[in-house]
This record gives sequence, structure tokens and C-alpha cells, in this order.
Amino acid sequence: MLTAELMNKLEEKEQRIIDIRRHLHEHPELSFEEEKTSAYIENFYKELPVDTVDTNVGGHRGIVVTINGTKPGKTIAIRADFDALPIQEETELPFASKNEGVMHACGHDGHTAYMLVLAETLAEMKEQLAGTVKIIHQPAEEMPPGGAIGMVKAGVLDGVDAVFGIHVMSTMDTGQIFYRSGNTQTGRARFKLLVQGKGGHGSSPHMANDAIVAASSFVMNCQTIVSRRINPFDTAVVTIGSFDGKGQFNIIKDSVAIEGDVRTMSAESRELVEAEVRHFAKGLEESFGVETTLEYVNDYPVLYNDPEMTERVRQALIQAAIPEVDAVKEVAPQPPSEDFAYYLQEKPGCFFYVGAKPEGKEWYPHHHPKFEIDEKSLLISAKAMAAVVASFCGKSES
Amino acid sequence: MLTAELMNKLEEKEQRIIDIRRHLHEHPELSFEEEKTSAYIENFYKELPVDTVDTNVGGHRGIVVTINGTKPGKTIAIRADFDALPIQEETELPFASKNEGVMHACGHDGHTAYMLVLAETLAEMKEQLAGTVKIIHQPAEEMPPGGAIGMVKAGVLDGVDAVFGIHVMSTMDTGQIFYRSGNTQTGRARFKLLVQGKGGHGSSPHMANDAIVAASSFVMNCQTIVSRRINPFDTAVVTIGSFDGKGQFNIIKDSVAIEGDVRTMSAESRELVEAEVRHFAKGLEESFGVETTLEYVNDYPVLYNDPEMTERVRQALIQAAIPEVDAVKEVAPQPPSEDFAYYLQEKPGCFFYVGAKPEGKEWYPHHHPKFEIDEKSLLISAKAMAAVVASFCGKSES
Amino acid sequence: MLTAELMNKLEEKEQRIIDIRRHLHEHPELSFEEEKTSAYIENFYKELPVDTVDTNVGGHRGIVVTINGTKPGKTIAIRADFDALPIQEETELPFASKNEGVMHACGHDGHTAYMLVLAETLAEMKEQLAGTVKIIHQPAEEMPPGGAIGMVKAGVLDGVDAVFGIHVMSTMDTGQIFYRSGNTQTGRARFKLLVQGKGGHGSSPHMANDAIVAASSFVMNCQTIVSRRINPFDTAVVTIGSFDGKGQFNIIKDSVAIEGDVRTMSAESRELVEAEVRHFAKGLEESFGVETTLEYVNDYPVLYNDPEMTERVRQALIQAAIPEVDAVKEVAPQPPSEDFAYYLQEKPGCFFYVGAKPEGKEWYPHHHPKFEIDEKSLLISAKAMAAVVASFCGKSES
Amino acid sequence: MLTAELMNKLEEKEQRIIDIRRHLHEHPELSFEEEKTSAYIENFYKELPVDTVDTNVGGHRGIVVTINGTKPGKTIAIRADFDALPIQEETELPFASKNEGVMHACGHDGHTAYMLVLAETLAEMKEQLAGTVKIIHQPAEEMPPGGAIGMVKAGVLDGVDAVFGIHVMSTMDTGQIFYRSGNTQTGRARFKLLVQGKGGHGSSPHMANDAIVAASSFVMNCQTIVSRRINPFDTAVVTIGSFDGKGQFNIIKDSVAIEGDVRTMSAESRELVEAEVRHFAKGLEESFGVETTLEYVNDYPVLYNDPEMTERVRQALIQAAIPEVDAVKEVAPQPPSEDFAYYLQEKPGCFFYVGAKPEGKEWYPHHHPKFEIDEKSLLISAKAMAAVVASFCGKSES
Repeated sequence: MLTAELMNKLEEKEQRIIDIRRHLHEHPELSFEEEKTSAYIENFYKELPVDTVDTNVGGHRGIVVTINGTKPGKTIAIRADFDALPIQEETELPFASKNEGVMHACGHDGHTAYMLVLAETLAEMKEQLAGTVKIIHQPAEEMPPGGAIGMVKAGVLDGVDAVFGIHVMSTMDTGQIFYRSGNTQTGRARFKLLVQGKGGHGSSPHMANDAIVAASSFVMNCQTIVSRRINPFDTAVVTIGSFDGKGQFNIIKDSVAIEGDVRTMSAESRELVEAEVRHFAKGLEESFGVETTLEYVNDYPVLYNDPEMTERVRQALIQAAIPEVDAVKEVAPQPPSEDFAYYLQEKPGCFFYVGAKPEGKEWYPHHHPKFEIDEKSLLISAKAMAAVVASFCGKSES
Repeated sequence: MLTAELMNKLEEKEQRIIDIRRHLHEHPELSFEEEKTSAYIENFYKELPVDTVDTNVGGHRGIVVTINGTKPGKTIAIRADFDALPIQEETELPFASKNEGVMHACGHDGHTAYMLVLAETLAEMKEQLAGTVKIIHQPAEEMPPGGAIGMVKAGVLDGVDAVFGIHVMSTMDTGQIFYRSGNTQTGRARFKLLVQGKGGHGSSPHMANDAIVAASSFVMNCQTIVSRRINPFDTAVVTIGSFDGKGQFNIIKDSVAIEGDVRTMSAESRELVEAEVRHFAKGLEESFGVETTLEYVNDYPVLYNDPEMTERVRQALIQAAIPEVDAVKEVAPQPPSEDFAYYLQEKPGCFFYVGAKPEGKEWYPHHHPKFEIDEKSLLISAKAMAAVVASFCGKSES
Repeated sequence: MLTAELMNKLEEKEQRIIDIRRHLHEHPELSFEEEKTSAYIENFYKELPVDTVDTNVGGHRGIVVTINGTKPGKTIAIRADFDALPIQEETELPFASKNEGVMHACGHDGHTAYMLVLAETLAEMKEQLAGTVKIIHQPAEEMPPGGAIGMVKAGVLDGVDAVFGIHVMSTMDTGQIFYRSGNTQTGRARFKLLVQGKGGHGSSPHMANDAIVAASSFVMNCQTIVSRRINPFDTAVVTIGSFDGKGQFNIIKDSVAIEGDVRTMSAESRELVEAEVRHFAKGLEESFGVETTLEYVNDYPVLYNDPEMTERVRQALIQAAIPEVDAVKEVAPQPPSEDFAYYLQEKPGCFFYVGAKPEGKEWYPHHHPKFEIDEKSLLISAKAMAAVVASFCGKSES
Repeated sequence: MLTAELMNKLEEKEQRIIDIRRHLHEHPELSFEEEKTSAYIENFYKELPVDTVDTNVGGHRGIVVTINGTKPGKTIAIRADFDALPIQEETELPFASKNEGVMHACGHDGHTAYMLVLAETLAEMKEQLAGTVKIIHQPAEEMPPGGAIGMVKAGVLDGVDAVFGIHVMSTMDTGQIFYRSGNTQTGRARFKLLVQGKGGHGSSPHMANDAIVAASSFVMNCQTIVSRRINPFDTAVVTIGSFDGKGQFNIIKDSVAIEGDVRTMSAESRELVEAEVRHFAKGLEESFGVETTLEYVNDYPVLYNDPEMTERVRQALIQAAIPEVDAVKEVAPQPPSEDFAYYLQEKPGCFFYVGAKPEGKEWYPHHHPKFEIDEKSLLISAKAMAAVVASFCGKSES
């Protein structure tokens, strides 16, 4: 009943979702700088019968809205992120970015658009709800340390029973929804290692201490982390993305700065890689007599979907029988990292994927200057999240 | 007789040598850009009874002067270089460089000064000479490919029987002269290696080809050239001075540019190092599937002093009994490279060293912003070269 | 009906299964040398109403038995292996191995025991069967190239619709059965690399070509296969298990023999690792001027369970409701390799796992001198395989 | 006078020297096992008018003989070694080794032969000597720790003013004598490194700690000692002669034993290499979590010929005008190590070389199964050492 009515209302509002999304797409803002976007969201709720609207939550213009049902029940949180990327848009969309060098190239405009209209609809139907729905509008998903961690610290999950999020995916077929239980997106760390040797003339290595040689040995050693330390059935990546050892050909380099990127799919591997990188840095000191300074920062954790909650999402989606959805499928683990993982460290929940591959034209991956989504994915997202909400806050429930 | 008279005349002109040197020191010019210096030298010869003055020899304002004696005899060439370095002078000399960022920090001002006055003196005494003295004023010793090679190609050594040069040395005691027979200063090569892999996202190494890893392996492999390929009783250095692999921490680097410096003390080692660097570049392609582009340039060769000529210099110096000289000594091989080596590839000769360590104050190595020489070394240089010239072109000779 | 009757009969014969298993356990034989075991199996079938008994199939004493039902139907093959390992048994079982240094430390005695009694039972009930059951008694699972490949080449799968096998697992709880769809056990390759340099005196590396240095570089390079070439969500292992470079401390080693072990979970990775090992061997030649000889042998392929067949096994097991079985569960991929994979390259099928962890005592992994199984797993195996057979060959079927 | 008479006497005894040498050559004994050789020497002195004969000096059958002159003077020591090598002789000499697998393949038979006859001659002429001549017959030059160190500890150099030794050289022309001042033969060290990781199955590297990978990294790191730490104008060699990592291809190796050989030409380099090897061992522990055990033994030091003594030898040889000697020449540094260096650490002296290349036939290096010397070198050695002795102990001297 609740579900069906929600679906109908959302269907009627499809064009509004699209319009909002296009407006946001035209006016993208970088992570931690989303002034106008946040104001737009705040303004959207001005006249709506929601119960609370907290602004500047977590110190970076996050907004949290609560809608209380008329019967006691569960409290669930649903989240949409709203930041854009430092990319110059190369689509030819009529609503392409008007901000030089900034682009919604990851679909967060769509997340926010569906979420606003879903929130409005839930507010309109609050009489029929049990429990509480918390809507989290989060800034800065794209840039570590990410907006999520600030929201969590600000207490947005206090009293929450479960938390859910959606990502629209240009890489997955429109009309399909994807889920995965357990470890689903990689955790990430980054590190900077300064290798300090001693400069000198190229013809007199014995008077110097060659930082390039020491750093090269570090690069080779780091390969053994994945090849020898990680369980072959687990997943880890250690990439040295930067080896800054530019100098003059005939001067022995006094220092080299290395930067690395780490991906893991389990907490054990996350700790293990950090420990190994630290060992190899220390080992350089012993071996080559250099000094090293290592900054190692674990940022987004492994995104872990609670199996029970994931099953619940799956069933809610199947029972909702959304007409625009052909299939609800399990998906392979996803290489990128996502700060929704912080919410899932605190509360059980599920982050799932709505196919948004444009039909009948070439598609581009996320973060590409020609990235586009099929806008049909927006109504699907709204309906899918509505189904999840209804499965918790339908009056027959609790 | 000739020697004695030369000595006397030079002694009288000591102050002129110093004045010329100070003038040049105040007005240093970079390699291949020595316009005013060359003009100064040309002008110096205007009124002198020399036989020919060729300008712009070798295409970079080199000057060659000939003085023919009145009797037939040997033709010997003596050379002074006249370029300065891109160094900001930090001495407090009253005649410190007036050219921002340019400095005579290697003593070439002194070489030119003593040579001009010696040439003048020889010209004045040409009646007493047998054979021919060629004076080579050479640009651009400091910067590969160096001025010497152009002079050689221009034919300055045609018909020359022997060639000699002096370097004043702030690292050796004033009042002493040093020589070495055989291989004396290192030969040099430089190379640039571009390692072209394939970029990609840090989380997906299998879609990319990591140039930093391949280049690090190259660096480690290069260590084995000196450790395993070079005769332990020979000398070679392979320094990777530049490893330009700066990038973003989470992007796999598509290419790395490496630059290296090579020093050797024998023609075999020179060839061997080049062959090995080429092997390792090729090996990278086979091993890592990268593409490599290697530019390998042998520049200054090993400086080889002809044993007979060296002995002749030694004896000439001892017989000259220059009062300002306490000792004439054999010296260890010298790490720097020197383009005088090109002359010595063509003709027998000797490049030797005149001590110029400042007395009673701190001394600094060549190429240091506080580099100074003891100006006593200038007269000594003039007399020493005069002695060598006299040993060939004294009338009693030939 | 068929299933129920099979279960009852097997239950009555439990002690016989155990007795046969203990007899085999006492008399283990090494791979490719299983004379008495094969004779024992052959003898078992002497009086039984089976249709054919082929011996010495595949050239190594394999035995294939067929039992034709009375109605047409599917042909399915079920396999048990019968070789033992070169391990000195350290259990204190009353039926411990009587053959010095040989032990059934992997449970193949149990496989053969349950299979014999299951075959006997199926033969007794052939009136009630549709189609054909082929029983494959296979030698030499433990030693590459393995017995399976010979059986396949001998045509044992000709006309077969599906093929099944069971492994008892001391590492999994008794009373549970485990399955996995898709790639389930690793494929394997092994290689030998001879690195031929040139010997010489330790004090004169330039006269020699140091094979230890070249081989060490190969070892380091090989780490990058897993760290940089393999999809992080796939699985591969490259282990250098042997580096035979023993020599005299002061003699440069002329050659080194390396042996490696490779595990992969997909055909792409299998090919990719081989290609990379070949590149690195070739790269050594280019880089270090050594000669290399590489023998690279892919042995057991990745074991791939057909998803449909796996689902069929799952359902058959659930419907059979075997009282001794608490749970039928999905299991993670298994690191070891298994030559059953060769059958699955030819025909769809499923290889699954029966828990056999001893209760109330310490347990040991397969290939351990103290390895034991819970003998309850034998009846469970017989019933489980009976359920699978019945799902194909029950008369109501086809 | 003394010299001339010595020369004459020695010339008369040439055949005796050759006979003794041939006898010794037929009966070679290994280092530290020279029973019969020592007895032969002792016996030789039985009837001679020497002053003392000490046996078993230094604990390994060394023999020291003193001959006192009739006038006071200097005490000089002259040394011959008498051990052979574990090599199966492959010459076709009529007096080839009768001891299976043992051969005088380094010329120590010749050293002892000339020395005995020289000692006899000096004893016969002791009336004409001033000072004292000590003759040191030393065992075990070929095997560390060497016989010299024991002799030195036993006090054989107490009261000695200078010490001299000769090596016959199959690599240098017969009829020439060679000397070098300063550092002349390399010092040597040897080390054993045990790298203890943790074994495991080849498919599960994360459960193990791969000693082969750690040890390979050590080998690569060690290359940087010579390439980056040693003055390019100095000499050092670090050879890993043994990498004992033989195992099964599919078992991760738990430990690897490495053995290395080090050569240096200066005390600084000697210390530096040891320090670096220790750093790299320690670095392995930090980097790879292995345990290491390092035994590092400096054995023979750099052989340093005192410049004054070397000059004295040179002059003595020239003044002696030995008719069989065409030239007395300076020679390049020699790669092998020699325990005569221990004597030269205690007292000034000179170790020099007598050419012994066989004429008119192929020649082989020392330690080769076909090694031979030209026996003319024996009389030359005797005369050369006689000349040195005479220069100190001739009566006109001191």
C-alpha cells in the first residue's frame, strides 16, 4: 500500500527530478566548497512539512532532515552526496556545466535530485509512516577525508537503525539494480615517503648517498606486499603513483619523494599493507643509511554491506516490482573507494547500484569529461529507495 | 738561454697578467656565449708581431694565433680556455663578477691571462725561436659538447707535433706543479632514457603498465655495471642523477624519464658501460613490455697524457728550476672530465696542473661560489708553459 | 523412491565402507605405482552384476565400470581417485600405513571405499535405474601430469552427459557438505629456469658473468607479475620454490637453476603468468647477457564447476535430506589444484566437498603426517553421491 | 763482493734447487697437513752450520732458522711457504704429483726449494755476514686463516728489521722481476649470511615468509656497495659466490644460506664493505621480517709494501745485475690475496714477483691443473733474494 502510493507519486514527479538534476548539473561545486548547492537544498525544504532541517552539519554545509511518522518504529537514514569534480565538461548537453573546470562527472547531481523529491514525497505522506526517516545530504564525497566522516562525528547516525545509499552507474545497464553483500568497495590508504640521502657530484658516489637508488629499491620491495603477503584470495593493490626524483644528470640526488595509493578489501589486509610499507621504509634506513619520513593515511575504509540488510534490500526491490526495473542482480566487488563506508562502520546498512548507462549512444566511465547518465535512472533510484524505506517504515511494519 | 730570458721577461710582466685576469674575472661569460671575452683577446693581439690571428675558429669565437720562429723546427700548440660558469659569485673580491649569475669559478680567467702575456712575450722573442708556436684560445670547455671538438674539427692541430695545456688548481698547493702519465682525467658520457609504459588508475594495475616499477628495476640493474662488469682495478661510475616520475599518487605513471652520468678511465670501460646501458634498456622492453628511447652521448673522452711527452714536461720543468716552484710531482688520476682530451686524441701531448691553493685562508673547490686562486699561480703557469715551449722551440733544439 | 532405497541400503553397508577404507589405508601406494590397489578394486567387481569392467584404462591401472539402467536416460560419470602420498604416517591408528614412507594422507582411501560400495549398491538396483552410470577409479591424482588426463584421453567421457566427484575434507566440519559454482580450485603450472652465465674467480667479476645476480633480478622481477599484471579481484600466485645457486664463496657462479610454482583461478591469468615468466627469462638474456632455458608446464587447469550442474547438486542434496547432513553450504575458492579439472574441461559437472573434520580431537590439514578423517564422512559421501546419481538416473527422470 | 760470491755459489747449485723442487712437487700436502714436507725441511738443516732451527712454530709445523753473521747488523727475515692445493694435477711432468687430488699448483715447491739452497749457502758464508738472517718456512698460505698469522703470533718477527718474500709467477715473463710499492695485493674477507624466513605451501605465500625473495633483494642491494660506496679510484669486489636456496618447486623456502667473498685494496674500503654488508643484513630483517645470522671474517689484509723497502729491493736487484734477469719493472696491483700481508702489518718489507712463464709452450694461471713454472725462475729467485739479503747483511753495510 505505502509502497504503491509512493511509486505513483514519484512517477508523477519524474520531470521535477530531472529538472532539479539539470539545474544542479549546470552549477557544480567542488568538494568542501558547495555553498550554492547547499543553499539550494536548504531552500528546497523551506515550505515542506518535514520535522527538522539541520544545516552546516559536520562543518561543511551538510544538511540533515528528519521526517517523523505517526507511529513508533525504526529510524532509518538515507544519504545522497552533492559535490562535483575538478573536470572540464566535454559533453554537449544543453545543461552542461557553467562552471569552468568543474563538472558533475560522477552522478551526485542525480543522487541529490532523486533524494529531494523522495523526501518531499515522504513528507507529504508522513501520516502513513511509522518510525523516522533521516535524510542525509552530504558534501565532499570525492575528496579525502570526505564529508561522511564529519557527518558521522556530528552524530547524524545517533539513534539510527540502518543506513542506505545509492550510486547511479554509467557502467551498468539502465533498468537493472545491483547489490553485493559483505565487502563491496575497496578501502583506501595513501602515503608519502621522503627518502633523504645526501647529494654530491655524479663522479663521486662515495662522498654522497644516492636517494634514487634507495628509493628504487623501495619500489621493488613494495611489489612483494601484494605478491607475498596478501592472501591470494583477498584483494590488495599497492601503487607507487609518484617518484619525484627529477634532478641534474650529473648530480647525485639528495632526496626523493614517493607517493603511493593502497586499495584493500578487508581490514586485515588494510593493516597488513600499512605495516609492510612501514617495514620497508625502516628497512631503507638500515640498508642504505638514508633518513625516511613516512606519512601514511588510511582514508575511506572497506565498504561493508551488512548481509542481512543487503538481503532485505534485495527482497524489498523484488517485492516492489518496479516496472522500470528488469533485474536485481548480485554484482562483483567494485574497485573504487567510497566514503559511505564510514556510515556502514557505525550502523548496518547497504550501499547499492542503479544502472544508468545511456541507451543508444556511447557511454563513458565515471570521472570522464564526457560522462553521462540515462535520466531514467533517476526515477528508478527514487522508487528503489522508496521501496527500501517502505520496507522499514510501512505502518504494517515494526 | 731562451728559457732564462723568457722567465725574466715574464717575471717583469707579472702584474699585467694579474690585471688581465682580474678584468676577465669581473666580466665572465657563459660557454658558447663568450662575445666580449673573445673580442678582448682579439684586441690584445692587434699590435703584436704575431704571424696570424684567426678568429671565430670552430664557429664559437675561438681564436688561434701563430708565432713562427726564424729557424725550422717543431710546431707545438698550447691552449687556454676562456668560458665561465652559471654560478652566482660569493667571494668578496674587489674584482668579483659583475655579471649576475655568472662566475669564473674554475680559473679559466687565469689561463687566458697567463697565455696572453706568454704569447706576447714569445712574439717579442720570435727571433730566438725555432719552429712554430700555435696559441689556442678555446671557448666553452665547461659545457658539452665543449669547444675543443670544434677547434679540432676546424683543423687547429694540422701540422702540430705536440699539444699542451695547464689547469690551475685551487685544491693543490701553490708552488707545486703536478703531472700524470697515461689516463689522467675521466671520460664522460650522459644518457637519457625514456621508459614508456601505459597510464591507468591506481586501483587497476592490470589495465596499465607501470613505468615507475620498470624504471626502478633499471636503476637497480645499472648498479651491476660497476659492481660486476668493470675491472676492479679500473675506474667507472654510473650515476642516475634524475628519475623524473612525478605524478598523482593514485594514477599509474605512464612514462618516466631517467638521466644518467657516466665516468670512465679507459676506452674499454667507456664502450663497455655504453653497451651495458643499452642492454638494460633493451632488457626492460623484453621484461616489462615498456618501450624505451635511449639517447646515449659520449662526450669528453678519457684524457690521456702521452708518457713520452709527460716525461718531457717533467724534465723541462725540473731543468727550468723555476724559483717559485718547490716541487714537480706525480698526481693521482682526477675525477673531473676535461675537453682537452679531444686534442690529446689527435696529437701527443700533456695536460698538467699548477697548484693555486690560496695561502692563509680557507680554500674552496672548483665550481664553488667562493672559489678563489692564489694569483701567484699565474706567473708560475706562464713560466711553466714557457719552459715547455722552450724545450721544443729553443734554437738549440730540433 | 530410488533415493530413499539407495540411502537405506548404503546405511546398512556403512561398516563395509569403513572396513574397505581401513584396508586401503593400511596398504597405500604412490601415484602411478598403484598395483595392489588397482587389483583390489578389480577384484571387488568380480562377482557384481555390473555391465563392463575395463582395466588399465589410460595406461596406469585405471578402472572404469559401467552400470546400465533398464530404461534409456542420461549417462553420468562419477569418479574416485586411489593413490597415496610419499609421507611417513604419524597417526596412531590401528590401521596405520604398513608401507614405509607412504600414506593415504589426503583421503583417497575414503573416496575409493565409498565409491565401491555405492557401485555395488547401484548394480544391485540397476533395474530401477534409467540411463548409465560410469564409475571412474582413477590413479595418480597427486602427481603431475596426474591420472585424470590419461583417462580423458582414453575416452572415458565419451557419451557422458555430466561428471561428478567428491573430496572429503579434514578442514571442514563433519556433517556439512560444501559446493562452489564457477572457478573453484586453482590451476597450476610449474617451471624450471636455467640461468647460464660464466664462472670465474670471485676477485675478477669482469672476466665472468655472475648467474646469481641475474637470477636474483629475475626473482625480484617475478614479484611484479602478481603485484602489477593480475586483476586485483582475480587470484594468482607465483612462488620461486627453489634457487639452486650453491657454490664456493670465492668462485663466481656460472649457472643457477630456478624452479617455480604458479597458481591461477582463470584461464586469462594462467596464460598471462606464463607469458610474463617467458618475458622475464628473455629479459634476463638481454639485460645480463646470460643464456636461459625455460621449461614451463601448465599442469592441472582451473577447476570449473558448471553453474547449472552445481545448482543441480545443491538441490539434489537438499531434497535428499540426508539425516547425517546438517547443512549444504557455499564455500570459498580452494587454493589446491586438482586433476578433476580435466574432466570438467570436457563435460559439465561439479566437484564438491564433504566435511570430514574429526570430532573431539585435534585435526590436521591434508598432506600432514597426522592427517585423519572422521569416518562418518564416508557414509555421507556415499549418500551424497547417490543423491546426485538418483537425480539423473531415477526412472521418473529423463 | 758478498753478492758476487753468493751468486756464484747459487749458480753452481742450480740443479740441486731443481731436484728439491721436483721432489716437493711429487709429494704435495694440503694446508695445515704438511707433515712430510715439514719433516723434509727440518731434515735438510740437520748438518748445516745454522744457529738455530725451531720446529712446529705457530702450531702447524712451521720452521724458523737463524743464521747469525759475525758482525753486528740488521736482522732480516725471508719467507717461503710450503703448502699445496686440493687440485688433481693434469700436467704430464715426469715429477707430477703422486698424491691423488693434491698439487703444487701455485709454485710453493719452488719457493721452498730456492730458499733451502739459499739458506744453506748463507750458512756456509756466515763468516761474511753482518747481522742476522731469519728464514721462515711457513705452512698453509692457501687456506684461511693462513699460516702466517700463527707465525707472527709466535713471535718470529721479534727483533726483525725488515721482512721479504718472493712469489714465482707463471703469468709473468721469465727473466723479469716485478715490484710494486704501497698497496699491492688485495685484502680479503668472507661472509656467510643465513636468511631465516618461514616455510609454507607454494600456493599460500601469506602464511609463509619467503626466504628466497629476501635473499634475492640482499644480492641486488649488495651490488650498490661497489657501485655507490667505494671511491671509484679505489678497488673493491663483493661477490656472492653461493646462494643455497635449493628446494621443492612448490614449497616456499624457509631459509637461504648465502656466502660471499670480498676484496679490497685499502683499510678504509675493507671496513666500509663490512659495515655495508652488516647494514644490508640488518635491513633485510626490518624489510622482510626474516631473521639473519651473519658471520663476517676479515682474513688476509691488504698487502702493503713499504715504499722505502721496495725502493731498496729495486736498487739491490739492479745493482746485483743478475745475468738471467733482463728487467726489473713496476707491476700493476695484483687481485689475489696473500697472507704475507700479515708480516708486512708488523714490519716494513716487500713482497715481490719473479717471472716464471714457461717458454715455448702454453702457460696456465696459478691454481690451474696444468700449472707449470719455468724452472729457470728458481735460480733467479735465489739470486734475487740473495741480493736483497746482501744489501742488508753485507759486511760493508750497517
